[in-house]
Amino acid sequence: MNKSGKNISQAIIKRLPRYYRFLGELKAEGVERISSGELSGMMNATASQIRQDLNNFGGFGQQGYGYNVDYLYEEIGKILHINTSHKMVMIGAGNLGSAICGYKSFPRYGFNIIAVFDIDPKKIGTYVHGIQVHSMDELEDFLEEHGVEIVIVAIPTDNAAGVMKRLEKTHIKGVWNFAHIDYDMPEGIVMESVHLSESLMILNYKIANAEGAGRK
Amino acid sequence: MNKSGKNISQAIIKRLPRYYRFLGELKAEGVERISSGELSGMMNATASQIRQDLNNFGGFGQQGYGYNVDYLYEEIGKILHINTSHKMVMIGAGNLGSAICGYKSFPRYGFNIIAVFDIDPKKIGTYVHGIQVHSMDELEDFLEEHGVEIVIVAIPTDNAAGVMKRLEKTHIKGVWNFAHIDYDMPEGIVMESVHLSESLMILNYKIANAEGAGRK
Repeated sequence: MNKSGKNISQAIIKRLPRYYRFLGELKAEGVERISSGELSGMMNATASQIRQDLNNFGGFGQQGYGYNVDYLYEEIGKILHINTSHKMVMIGAGNLGSAICGYKSFPRYGFNIIAVFDIDPKKIGTYVHGIQVHSMDELEDFLEEHGVEIVIVAIPTDNAAGVMKRLEKTHIKGVWNFAHIDYDMPEGIVMESVHLSESLMILNYKIANAEGAGRK
Repeated sequence: MNKSGKNISQAIIKRLPRYYRFLGELKAEGVERISSGELSGMMNATASQIRQDLNNFGGFGQQGYGYNVDYLYEEIGKILHINTSHKMVMIGAGNLGSAICGYKSFPRYGFNIIAVFDIDPKKIGTYVHGIQVHSMDELEDFLEEHGVEIVIVAIPTDNAAGVMKRLEKTHIKGVWNFAHIDYDMPEGIVMESVHLSESLMILNYKIANAEGAGRK
């Protein structure tokens, strides 16, 4: 539910980060206001859908004037709880874990990876993009001591269920999962999975059906 | 459109890879048939939704018997055009590119990365998970010569638009994009983007609204 007590649909929520990104780009270019028509071009959606989406958050637009870019950016940021600081840790110091630790946009949005965990003794004590790698033995104590909110899981499938089992007993609030498994977290821990092979299959399906499927 | 000429909704298409994954796991465990009720538990959807989904592809189920796992797996695989061989190349030999090159499930599904491209002279000629790194200068010739279907783009945002511009002039069929940009490919080239920061923002939103949002 949002501030006005309305339930916001999953579809709109999925579009919000994209609004946020486009508005951030506009802001960086010094654009002060934008019409729903212009946003529609960027978002690949109709102007009427844009207006409907944004009305959910209290009607920031003004007829004939458009949307104030700064204000809309700030408001969507608040809805997404961006720009408050979030402590995260990474489990897995492999290629994928390292790649994610190197993303420069995450700290800019307030998402800070403060530690990496791995089982490989050769990696423990080293640094990944400036972040220290700890032993998995220290995981629970570290999470508790630092009040970590989000744990990123970027390890092979075989070890993932065991790690999830450990995480479900902690006080974290969310798991960002890149392992190739599904896992039911208990109430109070949100899980969001990125299943890369599913995305590749969807691309492949769209290619095979390109006449009807359009582009994204 | 599918074989029977019906348009299949985007929502169903997005669920198909997940069906495929679960059915693959069942197959591996030697399970021969499954009811819509059991599938419903795995898919986090109602049994009636499962039946509706699968009816789109020609009603593979039988009342009181359930679905034949092998048959359904094969049929969904055909719809997704899996198990025919697809040639791919990776642009970007960084952490993310390397991580994706190491995914063992892709070749199993017929997706083969046959070359990596990078601009770093120190990387050219080396191997990433057994795949040779080529100079970006060779890109277009290589794509043409090998009939490459899909190009994976895993490079920093700053260089991405330039690469997309080069790709739009080639005969590839799809781009699997991990760079932090949107780009309009011309008719005939499908683009599927994985925007990791959007997934993280959605996780964050769900945490902040955990009471109403449920789990995934």
